[in-house]
Amino acid sequence: MALIVMKFGGTSMAGIERIRGVAARVKREIEAGNRVAVVVSAMAGETDRLVGFCREASPLADPAEYDVVVASGEQVTSGLLAIVLQSIGVPARSWLGWQLPVHTSDAHGKARIRDVGTDALLAAMNAGEVAVIPGFQGMAESGRVTTLGRGGSDTSAVAVAAALKADRCDIYTDVEGVFTTDPRIVPRARKLARITYEEMLELASVGAKVLQTRSVELAMKEKVRVQVLSSFTDAPGTLVVDEDEIVEQELIAGVAYDRNEAKVTIRGVPDKPGVVAAIFGPLADAGINVDMIVQNVANDGTTDVTFTVPRTELIRARSVLEANSATIGYAQLLTDDSVVKVSVVGVGMKSHAGVAVTMFRALADRGINVQAITTSEIKISVLIAEEYLELAVRVLHTAYGLDAAA
Amino acid sequence: MALIVMKFGGTSMAGIERIRGVAARVKREIEAGNRVAVVVSAMAGETDRLVGFCREASPLADPAEYDVVVASGEQVTSGLLAIVLQSIGVPARSWLGWQLPVHTSDAHGKARIRDVGTDALLAAMNAGEVAVIPGFQGMAESGRVTTLGRGGSDTSAVAVAAALKADRCDIYTDVEGVFTTDPRIVPRARKLARITYEEMLELASVGAKVLQTRSVELAMKEKVRVQVLSSFTDAPGTLVVDEDEIVEQELIAGVAYDRNEAKVTIRGVPDKPGVVAAIFGPLADAGINVDMIVQNVANDGTTDVTFTVPRTELIRARSVLEANSATIGYAQLLTDDSVVKVSVVGVGMKSHAGVAVTMFRALADRGINVQAITTSEIKISVLIAEEYLELAVRVLHTAYGLDAAA
Repeated sequence: MALIVMKFGGTSMAGIERIRGVAARVKREIEAGNRVAVVVSAMAGETDRLVGFCREASPLADPAEYDVVVASGEQVTSGLLAIVLQSIGVPARSWLGWQLPVHTSDAHGKARIRDVGTDALLAAMNAGEVAVIPGFQGMAESGRVTTLGRGGSDTSAVAVAAALKADRCDIYTDVEGVFTTDPRIVPRARKLARITYEEMLELASVGAKVLQTRSVELAMKEKVRVQVLSSFTDAPGTLVVDEDEIVEQELIAGVAYDRNEAKVTIRGVPDKPGVVAAIFGPLADAGINVDMIVQNVANDGTTDVTFTVPRTELIRARSVLEANSATIGYAQLLTDDSVVKVSVVGVGMKSHAGVAVTMFRALADRGINVQAITTSEIKISVLIAEEYLELAVRVLHTAYGLDAAA
Repeated sequence: MALIVMKFGGTSMAGIERIRGVAARVKREIEAGNRVAVVVSAMAGETDRLVGFCREASPLADPAEYDVVVASGEQVTSGLLAIVLQSIGVPARSWLGWQLPVHTSDAHGKARIRDVGTDALLAAMNAGEVAVIPGFQGMAESGRVTTLGRGGSDTSAVAVAAALKADRCDIYTDVEGVFTTDPRIVPRARKLARITYEEMLELASVGAKVLQTRSVELAMKEKVRVQVLSSFTDAPGTLVVDEDEIVEQELIAGVAYDRNEAKVTIRGVPDKPGVVAAIFGPLADAGINVDMIVQNVANDGTTDVTFTVPRTELIRARSVLEANSATIGYAQLLTDDSVVKVSVVGVGMKSHAGVAVTMFRALADRGINVQAITTSEIKISVLIAEEYLELAVRVLHTAYGLDAAA
């Protein structure tokens, strides 16, 4: 008899008919002899509606009261799912964040889960009752309602699974799993049967937005076996697991991309100690993340520095740099917001040389110029002109042998 | 420095603009040097939306889960009002039912308040913070969310006022106060400056739906001074108080009516002991309230029994009586759903003879036939044909000198 946590997103909970579909899936797990806790999101659109109220009430809404307002969406769906489960003969009850309780930090609007009370929960589940838990919400030490930030229900599910020592945490969503790349760009993209936490993190942070990053980090830390699968089909999903569980390791798990990139080039910077701090210090102070950095040294004692920032932050980054032009002492400031980052990710590359060579050769063969490079243990990213995005992703997908059989 | 509880209904909380209006009223009380707790309803229409979800989920929705769902409406408005208050410089925070806590019975969907925790609340209010409390919700001993039933926010406000020993409980609504009768029928109806709890109860139960009955009962028991006034004007409202507080007692406070009445006449019932039980026993078992009862004894050893039931229950009452016709042994069963009850209410009538005479004479003068009568210490009600409703109300309003100066 396994203990399973099932998590359903907003699309799966959007209206009573869909909630009936969710209940039917839960019932199947119960009939298979499993103990089940279900973590639910608010109905699709509901959190936006509530956030809209808060913003209209005040652009600087008190985060503690914001949490009181927005946490209500998951409260509603958890009660409704319990009602629907009961109506099909499955004993169920809701457990609100403060009832379990889900203890969190007091960082309202972006709280972190500290621990999840499980005594009452386990007693109820062992007695055959499905536990329905609103995601996204918790309680601070002060006794006030907190929320975990957008997408936090994934993290709630993993935290509940960790606390319950669940055999599996199934995240039901509107995609069928994790693919080798975006199927809209590469029709022959394949769904991965398994992926490691590390790969999932890299794929998520570069654009494959299937699971919230924090939930994957937590799953990795707590060794929670996560399955991503669709609410709307019966196809098997993708299992996100420890590296040890993956027997036949592929070299590359997938190809990801990120359009939210802009390039900044600072020309004619004095090539002396402290200049890098003069550039990146003010950007950090302004809360702007800097990603890829390239520095070329010229012969005349000056240097060019190129880096990327999120495209949505480019205007702010530019004005920060202009305000600090005297301190930095550069000749010219250039920006380009028509660049994208393309990455290949795979734990297999740790033990294989030549992964980068394959990448650069494949891109060069098509005349795609690489403007910057970053690497990690399991990822290589390149910055290229946006117009080559689809071509680059397809070329790399083929080059690493990821295409599905035709 | 007075301590005031202010309660705002769904119409007053319908959208952020209206909530700003509420906040402005609260700010005025604070600026006048008062300590303030505010009890709020859900936005108009929101509770219906949530109840609709529950019904769609299951016609037999678990009341405990129903409460989890519907209590969310007041949670949202309490957070939003706290945000708006802060935005205009008034320190405020929300206190949910489980946070105070508002302890209730465990009768989900129609729970009764047992006590309200005030320690933390008073500390915050004494420190100059407005306490915003969602009405309608509480917590059972089991730790689960409860609700008080429709209109329960009035009761929440009175219970909070009683627990805080408030100087006044101001109930803001969409009418300006309690009138001598329905102004749609009698344009010269007057707003009452003061009314006793007892009169308010009689007026509420016969149709002047300004305050929820339970809230008035609680106010009477706990001696909470309640003021009913409009959210949308600055006119003074009606103070609902103890009889002692009303110096110059009017004979009659008002004229009320109730259209939800139907008449049942059972002809040719054997005039013997036990027959009344044979009639009303089965109706009571079916949960049907019987109101006015008249019995005429005939000469032939039989009797006619006439009584009223809520019009919405007439069909059910009829089938109950038909199912029991053998036990009762009647000759004929007649029903009439075109009757109404008109009542005059006033604590002054206790000490004045002739109130009933004035009533019957005024009605007789206009040829209005009285089909049944009930009286209490402070109320006389008559059953008449519905077509005479407006005429009867106007005639009585004039007869007791209630018309405003032209």
